[in-house]
Amino acid sequence: MTGVAGDGFGARLSAAVEARASQLVLGLDPDPRRVPGGAEGARAFCRRAIAAAGPACVAAKLQLASFERFGTAGWEAFERVAASAAEAGLLVIADAKRGDVDVSSRAYADAFMRAPIDALTINPSLGGDAVAPFIEAAAPGARGLFALVRTSNPGAADFQDLPLASGGLWHEEVARRVAEWGAPGVDGSGLSALGAVVGATVPERIAALRALMPHQPFLIPGVGAQGGRAEDLGAAFGGRAAGALVAASRAIIFAESPRRAAEELRATLWSTYEDSLAG
Amino acid sequence: MTGVAGDGFGARLSAAVEARASQLVLGLDPDPRRVPGGAEGARAFCRRAIAAAGPACVAAKLQLASFERFGTAGWEAFERVAASAAEAGLLVIADAKRGDVDVSSRAYADAFMRAPIDALTINPSLGGDAVAPFIEAAAPGARGLFALVRTSNPGAADFQDLPLASGGLWHEEVARRVAEWGAPGVDGSGLSALGAVVGATVPERIAALRALMPHQPFLIPGVGAQGGRAEDLGAAFGGRAAGALVAASRAIIFAESPRRAAEELRATLWSTYEDSLAG
Repeated sequence: MTGVAGDGFGARLSAAVEARASQLVLGLDPDPRRVPGGAEGARAFCRRAIAAAGPACVAAKLQLASFERFGTAGWEAFERVAASAAEAGLLVIADAKRGDVDVSSRAYADAFMRAPIDALTINPSLGGDAVAPFIEAAAPGARGLFALVRTSNPGAADFQDLPLASGGLWHEEVARRVAEWGAPGVDGSGLSALGAVVGATVPERIAALRALMPHQPFLIPGVGAQGGRAEDLGAAFGGRAAGALVAASRAIIFAESPRRAAEELRATLWSTYEDSLAG
Repeated sequence: MTGVAGDGFGARLSAAVEARASQLVLGLDPDPRRVPGGAEGARAFCRRAIAAAGPACVAAKLQLASFERFGTAGWEAFERVAASAAEAGLLVIADAKRGDVDVSSRAYADAFMRAPIDALTINPSLGGDAVAPFIEAAAPGARGLFALVRTSNPGAADFQDLPLASGGLWHEEVARRVAEWGAPGVDGSGLSALGAVVGATVPERIAALRALMPHQPFLIPGVGAQGGRAEDLGAAFGGRAAGALVAASRAIIFAESPRRAAEELRATLWSTYEDSLAG
């Protein structure tokens, strides 16, 4: 796994969070039941969401499934929405949850690193040799990865929370290895290019996961529609403004005023972060 | 989760295996280091492989990463190769290893079920609510799923083999739940529409996994280049010809004669199955 010379993803992320005073990630996952018009409709919807809510956000998270369902046209829409988000000054996170044996992980990494994105979510359940190609592919462009550690859905408990014979829970062992694999990618910001997905729906787990992964930026879905509360996430930041990015989708894009909903969530997150420094 | 009325994927699979006297799956994952010419080159390569090795096989497994790396052009190539394989009389398995929270799993299911495929690999690590949308989407067309249980790569041991406090290994609990979730999808063939991916590289695990999943068709990668041996897979069939499909890729498509390599592997698998009935 490649080490980081000079500034890497952690430094880019930290600079972006400070510049925009925001840890909010605009989740773009146009639901076909609510967004008509095929790939073109999804693209237009995302562009409107970026225009309305983008100024309060530091990044946009594009859910690949929402685009992939349109096949060829969907891939084109994905690349165009990613470009629109970048033009609006947002970091672009491709929420793809990919993970495969080494040759195939390398091919996925190639697929995403040629797109105009800054970070990618990956599923690490196939182990270290499935994660390594992503780390290698992300490093040259100072791009980042977020490995699934504890997801936000109710079913996450089925396998991720199983208690291990060695003590602790399965996802804690994933956390430990993510911290280990991410160690060479920590830059001057104190953050690694290999981050972790941790659900907002399990705030009681967050302090333990922060202790296991002191240098991982957290990507936290599950605020709003899934029941997570921004106010409960203080422990996630670990004393760094860019220690946690919090993604909201339906809570913003289907709000009466996406602009106002995003700004309120941004402000809540920032003050939760500031309070966590005092606490 | 939807039950199966009449014949489902299991019956289709059983009929195909019997008709072709083959449990061999042609793995199509054109490696960019060995297959030049972009998406068009990959497509031409796959068509040649299907023409040469297809007659000895019952299915083709298309590795999505190998196509996705070409972006929009790659999706088009994927759909065309899938159509070519179907025209050659092969079942088409999309090896995508998708898995996400429920809304997104549904979108992925929509994405793949609109393509000309018969089965899809999924990553169940997000739990039951991430798997259910795939099961629901696959049932109407009598299509199948193969959930990752124990993958074939060396790194699989990192997380999938962790011993649980309750006894057994993590992937055995996955196996147990896959059997449970797949129970309503068992048809008259005795096989479920929800199968399992089990690596050929851990033959010593296969009998235990067959006991935990008596009705799951197994999709077994890892023969050949990854070191698994067809002769070691007798326990995988569970007494049914269609109980196990065995995928080989590099061992066939980069052989001096793909046609002969495929036919030899087909014959070895069939006699391994027949020997398992006697044993």
